[in-house]
Amino acid sequence: MANNKKMVEAITSRDEDFAKWYTDIVKKAELVDYSGVKGCTIYRPYGFAIWENMKADLDRRFKETGHENVYMPMFIPESLLQKEKDHVEGFAPECAWVTVGGQEKLTERLCVRPTSETLFCEHYKKIINTYRDLPKLYNQWCSVVRWEKTTRPFLRTSEFLWQEGHTMHETAEEAKEETLKMLHVYEAFYRETLAIPAVIGRKTEKEKFAGAEETYTIEPMMHNGVALQGGTSHYFGDGFAKSFDITYTGRDNKQHYPHQTSWGVSTRMIGALIMVHSDDDGLVLPPKISPIQVAIIPVAQHKEGVLDKAYELKTELSKNFRVKLDDSDHAPGWKFAEYEMKGVPVRVEIGPKDIEKGQCVVVRRDTREKAFVPLENLSQFITDLMQDIHNSMYERALKNTQDKTFVARSYDEFIDTAKNHPGFIKAMWCGETECEEKLKDVTGGVKSRCIPFEEEKLADTCVCCGKPAKHMVFWGRQY
Amino acid sequence: MANNKKMVEAITSRDEDFAKWYTDIVKKAELVDYSGVKGCTIYRPYGFAIWENMKADLDRRFKETGHENVYMPMFIPESLLQKEKDHVEGFAPECAWVTVGGQEKLTERLCVRPTSETLFCEHYKKIINTYRDLPKLYNQWCSVVRWEKTTRPFLRTSEFLWQEGHTMHETAEEAKEETLKMLHVYEAFYRETLAIPAVIGRKTEKEKFAGAEETYTIEPMMHNGVALQGGTSHYFGDGFAKSFDITYTGRDNKQHYPHQTSWGVSTRMIGALIMVHSDDDGLVLPPKISPIQVAIIPVAQHKEGVLDKAYELKTELSKNFRVKLDDSDHAPGWKFAEYEMKGVPVRVEIGPKDIEKGQCVVVRRDTREKAFVPLENLSQFITDLMQDIHNSMYERALKNTQDKTFVARSYDEFIDTAKNHPGFIKAMWCGETECEEKLKDVTGGVKSRCIPFEEEKLADTCVCCGKPAKHMVFWGRQY
Repeated sequence: MANNKKMVEAITSRDEDFAKWYTDIVKKAELVDYSGVKGCTIYRPYGFAIWENMKADLDRRFKETGHENVYMPMFIPESLLQKEKDHVEGFAPECAWVTVGGQEKLTERLCVRPTSETLFCEHYKKIINTYRDLPKLYNQWCSVVRWEKTTRPFLRTSEFLWQEGHTMHETAEEAKEETLKMLHVYEAFYRETLAIPAVIGRKTEKEKFAGAEETYTIEPMMHNGVALQGGTSHYFGDGFAKSFDITYTGRDNKQHYPHQTSWGVSTRMIGALIMVHSDDDGLVLPPKISPIQVAIIPVAQHKEGVLDKAYELKTELSKNFRVKLDDSDHAPGWKFAEYEMKGVPVRVEIGPKDIEKGQCVVVRRDTREKAFVPLENLSQFITDLMQDIHNSMYERALKNTQDKTFVARSYDEFIDTAKNHPGFIKAMWCGETECEEKLKDVTGGVKSRCIPFEEEKLADTCVCCGKPAKHMVFWGRQY
Repeated sequence: MANNKKMVEAITSRDEDFAKWYTDIVKKAELVDYSGVKGCTIYRPYGFAIWENMKADLDRRFKETGHENVYMPMFIPESLLQKEKDHVEGFAPECAWVTVGGQEKLTERLCVRPTSETLFCEHYKKIINTYRDLPKLYNQWCSVVRWEKTTRPFLRTSEFLWQEGHTMHETAEEAKEETLKMLHVYEAFYRETLAIPAVIGRKTEKEKFAGAEETYTIEPMMHNGVALQGGTSHYFGDGFAKSFDITYTGRDNKQHYPHQTSWGVSTRMIGALIMVHSDDDGLVLPPKISPIQVAIIPVAQHKEGVLDKAYELKTELSKNFRVKLDDSDHAPGWKFAEYEMKGVPVRVEIGPKDIEKGQCVVVRRDTREKAFVPLENLSQFITDLMQDIHNSMYERALKNTQDKTFVARSYDEFIDTAKNHPGFIKAMWCGETECEEKLKDVTGGVKSRCIPFEEEKLADTCVCCGKPAKHMVFWGRQY
């Protein structure tokens, strides 16, 4: 039990120091390790398995909506990156540049992709000729690099893993529809798979992506009331198409520019998983994404029949779940703490007395509720329990979001809420960037999150300048 | 039919110009496109789907043998790369270097990983403490960069996709066993999934990997008799462990160096698929790897009932196969040529007369054999056919390899065979690098492929110098 105690002591309390609690979990649950290059992390087996599960689920959703995977080179020549003015201004400052290849100085610098719009456009120019070639619905899974000064595992790293969808369409309407469709795919993934509720909506002019006409965002709230930009979907109009001279012969036999989208989510979602669901004993993972769904812990495993029965349960449960049976020589208490730390949704304990009674002990990670379950019902019980755990986790996260969503109808109310109540603030806005900047400055970091699809009319005037309001905006601090 | 003719004409004959035939297929089957950066290719949906299928199959084999996936950073600081002397000498000349990040010149250059031994070692140093931490059986899927002067799609590119396994073990025996185990995993994958036979064995001192004690290789022969190094598995002993000061407390409570392996295969395998199996009408893909396994082509699709029946077949066959029904307005002949070009193993044709007779036409891609199959037997027929196609493809490739494997017992015989008979040459060797170099020079490129596990005694003396022979070696030209 010494080990057990030591491990539990080592985690900072979430209420005491949220940032330290976060990095403690990242380290103790063995999700990542730091590398010798600042801001570049090593994804350890358990952390990477979470990403693999996310990837498999999202990839299925992308393929079901007609998308195909491709792979673009990791290097972008400087001249290619410069083809779209806003885009290069947005990304050039944080690029990593390859200047030497095979012992020779390159005649042109190559940027390690921070995002791949330019590469896709160059390719699309070659393969799009007529309306018959449209739509192109491509996605790629890769790593990208953005040179960050301040880094934090999963949330802000110089290299990260993500997917980037890049699509081309005949009409603006079709491209806009795609932009929103993929935002809703993300929202469904967060809700159905990660058990995370989120506000979705449109970014303001100031906050949109470099080169986009419109950016949509999904904004889950972390346990401490801070928002995370959890994924974005961009509508580009025909701006890139014009810069790259991509045209197609339309149904009217005339030349047209196609309309474009891009959309992406990243390993940052692992950060969201931690900060939305986890607690002082470690990770709490939603069943659908957890690398281990059921941990079987034999009690008094040296006694006759215990390990046999445990293996029997493993065989049975493995038909429906990802199961780990820990028969190592650690004490059961150490194992309990270990799989709690790793956020395994369900623990099954089986000892000599349980076997006598034809039952086992089932403990859920999220609420610690314990049940004695007849062995013959175990598989069905756990199937139902997994659904229940998912729903409870979602509901708790939703309640936290609702509890920490405030309304501000005046400037003073806004400042007061921003100072004293971490969370979202719903408030009216005139539409001017100046007001966004002022609110950010005076609050020390509260920014517009998004304009939701269904706005409430909270007041007639902008909370900042008092001029007529155009939109209701969700505001908040962000990671 | 005009389209059809045009497409078929556009492929160079394999016997006429093998290299041009190869690049024609790569382009016409829409596997890759070239990017603006020399030697970096774009994997188009069909080419990338082949890689995804390879990856899924191999990943299952790796996990079944106890390996876990991780992800290491793409950058290696120059000082880290230099820690193992042989290794840096092998790779530094072909590295791409990042020298500027976020608009500032870096204090230390970062190499874009050409392979990740050094990164794994740096991590292993932190996480390996006692024998209880061993073995570590890690793998990663990623892209790597080696600055190549002459490039060819899949075979030699500046950036390519691969997997690299990196494992650490208590003993030399265990590490050697792992090295061979993974070589055999590759051999099984080539045989069972790619339908490609191969010679396997150990590389000579001259040909082994930079920093390895022993390198094992899998060497399939292409249709034209040229070999491809299709995958390698390395035993490092404790060389890297010593350079990186990785030690563990053993069962004897003393400090020991762990023993290491690494092993990898890459997108080069797509090149092998093309060059082993394909023909003058395009790709011929083995059923297990083909993105589309069955192409359903409706004939006279405007006639009543044809498309309905075609969709019915699609629903039925999709239960067991990856199916594409092409109901576009191209002529059936164009579609036949299109799916032949893409190497789809089985084509199903269904027209009004077939429907009347309750049958369809089934054509296999590899032999063009045609069968009329009662609709009620279709699924079972195709299941059997797929196995048959796989076996036939393997047998044909095996026969080609056997037909093009020669024996040389004297120097003159070696030179004559090298000049006149493309393929493998089995010949005795004294063990000296000098003889390997001489044979390579005089033949204009014939190199040792490997020393097989079961050597034949063809003669007593080295085919080159006449001194006593130590080994029988497979020799051949390579891609």
